[in-house]
Amino acid sequence: MARQTAPAVADKISDTAKIIQKKILKKQKPTMSTPVRSLSNVAYHANKGYFQMKGKNKIRTLTVSTVKTFAQTLKMMSLSKELIETDDMATKREAYYISKNWGKAGFSEQPESDTIMDDVEAMFGVNREQLKFVPEEKGGDIAGRLMVIDRDSQGKRLKIDCTKFGSGAYSIPSDVEGLEFSSKAKFILAIETAGMFQRLVKYNYWDINNCILISMGGVPTRACRRFIRRLSDELKIPVYAFVDGDPYGYFNIYRTLKVGSGNAAHLNEFFCVPKARFLGVTPQDVIDYKLPTHPLKEVDIKRAKDALKNDPFVKHHKPWQAAINQMLKMGVRVEQQAFAKHGLDFVVKNYMPEKLKNNGKFLP
Amino acid sequence: MARQTAPAVADKISDTAKIIQKKILKKQKPTMSTPVRSLSNVAYHANKGYFQMKGKNKIRTLTVSTVKTFAQTLKMMSLSKELIETDDMATKREAYYISKNWGKAGFSEQPESDTIMDDVEAMFGVNREQLKFVPEEKGGDIAGRLMVIDRDSQGKRLKIDCTKFGSGAYSIPSDVEGLEFSSKAKFILAIETAGMFQRLVKYNYWDINNCILISMGGVPTRACRRFIRRLSDELKIPVYAFVDGDPYGYFNIYRTLKVGSGNAAHLNEFFCVPKARFLGVTPQDVIDYKLPTHPLKEVDIKRAKDALKNDPFVKHHKPWQAAINQMLKMGVRVEQQAFAKHGLDFVVKNYMPEKLKNNGKFLP
Repeated sequence: MARQTAPAVADKISDTAKIIQKKILKKQKPTMSTPVRSLSNVAYHANKGYFQMKGKNKIRTLTVSTVKTFAQTLKMMSLSKELIETDDMATKREAYYISKNWGKAGFSEQPESDTIMDDVEAMFGVNREQLKFVPEEKGGDIAGRLMVIDRDSQGKRLKIDCTKFGSGAYSIPSDVEGLEFSSKAKFILAIETAGMFQRLVKYNYWDINNCILISMGGVPTRACRRFIRRLSDELKIPVYAFVDGDPYGYFNIYRTLKVGSGNAAHLNEFFCVPKARFLGVTPQDVIDYKLPTHPLKEVDIKRAKDALKNDPFVKHHKPWQAAINQMLKMGVRVEQQAFAKHGLDFVVKNYMPEKLKNNGKFLP
Repeated sequence: MARQTAPAVADKISDTAKIIQKKILKKQKPTMSTPVRSLSNVAYHANKGYFQMKGKNKIRTLTVSTVKTFAQTLKMMSLSKELIETDDMATKREAYYISKNWGKAGFSEQPESDTIMDDVEAMFGVNREQLKFVPEEKGGDIAGRLMVIDRDSQGKRLKIDCTKFGSGAYSIPSDVEGLEFSSKAKFILAIETAGMFQRLVKYNYWDINNCILISMGGVPTRACRRFIRRLSDELKIPVYAFVDGDPYGYFNIYRTLKVGSGNAAHLNEFFCVPKARFLGVTPQDVIDYKLPTHPLKEVDIKRAKDALKNDPFVKHHKPWQAAINQMLKMGVRVEQQAFAKHGLDFVVKNYMPEKLKNNGKFLP
């Protein structure tokens, strides 16, 4: 399953539709096949680097009871083809409202249209953005040694220099497929909180250390993950993640960034960053840097124990198991801004340089 | 209460501290006075254009039981003075962690330090950013005919041209006080959802209509509100709000943007945009444009009835009372992307031009 050009995706849609049409004209029952989208259909291969589908499919046959879903799927495919051919796009919400003009095939609630969209995405083995359906939310700010090449509405090339935004930043668009990059940075630092991102921008961190700073603002959006992945592939420089030292930071943010998630396994291939490494904050950092902490909450403990037991990524990596067990034993979590206890510049002058000197020891 | 320069704020902090010191040296009990921060201490003056404090103060006297809070307030003032003098800043969370080095004056939880910070802010009649405390979250994306002038870390002027971001955007920094602007735009459009912002960027709306597009991404952050306010003051062009047609859009987003909120009345003066007008979506638009809707939820109805009864802004403006009553009678809410039912370009080709032709009829 490789990246496909827009005309190739449009052709695939046509081909699938034609097969269905032929069957109908022959008075046979047409079928559609989509991969099962759940954790039970997922495996982790460390060499591939992401959660991958095992191959279970669900087959939908046109019958009296499936006729509406069948029609909706075909209409959604048709909308996608139209968007590709007119170089337009639609948000998930817009797609839902467009369906209000599909007569009886209209959706009554947006979750229904979202599900069909996910099915179409998995069916064609492409990501939603290639079908020209874009996420509602944006997310991800950039500062540092990166030149992004985009196009204006007349198709003219625009060079966006991410060193020239002062205290502000470049905000990643919702569809990053068409962007090009150029950079001589030495590494990419993906940061959980906007607060820490600001701190590093304020202290000119990217300039002094020749890197690219990315503010994920919590769990990274699809666009943000895809953006980092494309940088990782094309610039061939390391990606380091700097997040809070708690189960949410370890699994919901870092694990999702690196290998993807279970319920969207059909798109992990495009949206994960297998080469990401974990810079911090680790439980050991709490000891080494005498950081102020908070006690683990019930939900933290539950999430950590679940991960040890059920998360294929954690089960594969012994160093992660050790780190999680250490955290559970210490009974505390730590925020990435806790370094401020030692002075606002401590993170820049002490922690980051000391960590980067030993980057071979980062958690996988 | 006017905008103050950084040295003026630092001097004010010194003066207050000296008065307290003198009293202590004379073995008298020092006091500190901060305005009461609640809806009961707020009035709406349409000519001033924002929720304003009525002037109730709480006086804190140094006693055995207040000694810790007293010390924390002085330490917080001292931290602010230091940040001003070193041209640094601290996020709310960083300020909390810095206190971990204040010995017995350290805070045990961040809400405690946030409260003291709010008190200091109100005490000096300045906004937190002037004290060099910046919000954790960023927020607000810009595209269109605006040049933002910021400075790099060496103090060199940087011109950021918001027409040159292609499908991306300029992300507003958390502290916008130091920015300068230049623009020949005709109006500013503040948009609730990132999805609608993308739609207008995709269709090149700002170029064709010579305007500035701002994505608020839900309830606008402090930085976003302050940014729009400064544009409104300095460019002297209209600000139009385009939000979902529901009580959340009307009150939590639009009302907060225009006149501020009750529990932060000490800073509404700086953070509201009194000249903002309401473009849509109105209940009448639902009828005029045959828009698909959703039934009002319980919480919507409650919020609307509360507003009619208790919101000083709504009680002042008859057209808003009429609009809310119309919404309650229709029993429906509408999302700003509902126009997609008539085609993705309907909002740009029909709705916006028709509305802007009659901008005298916008809700206040």
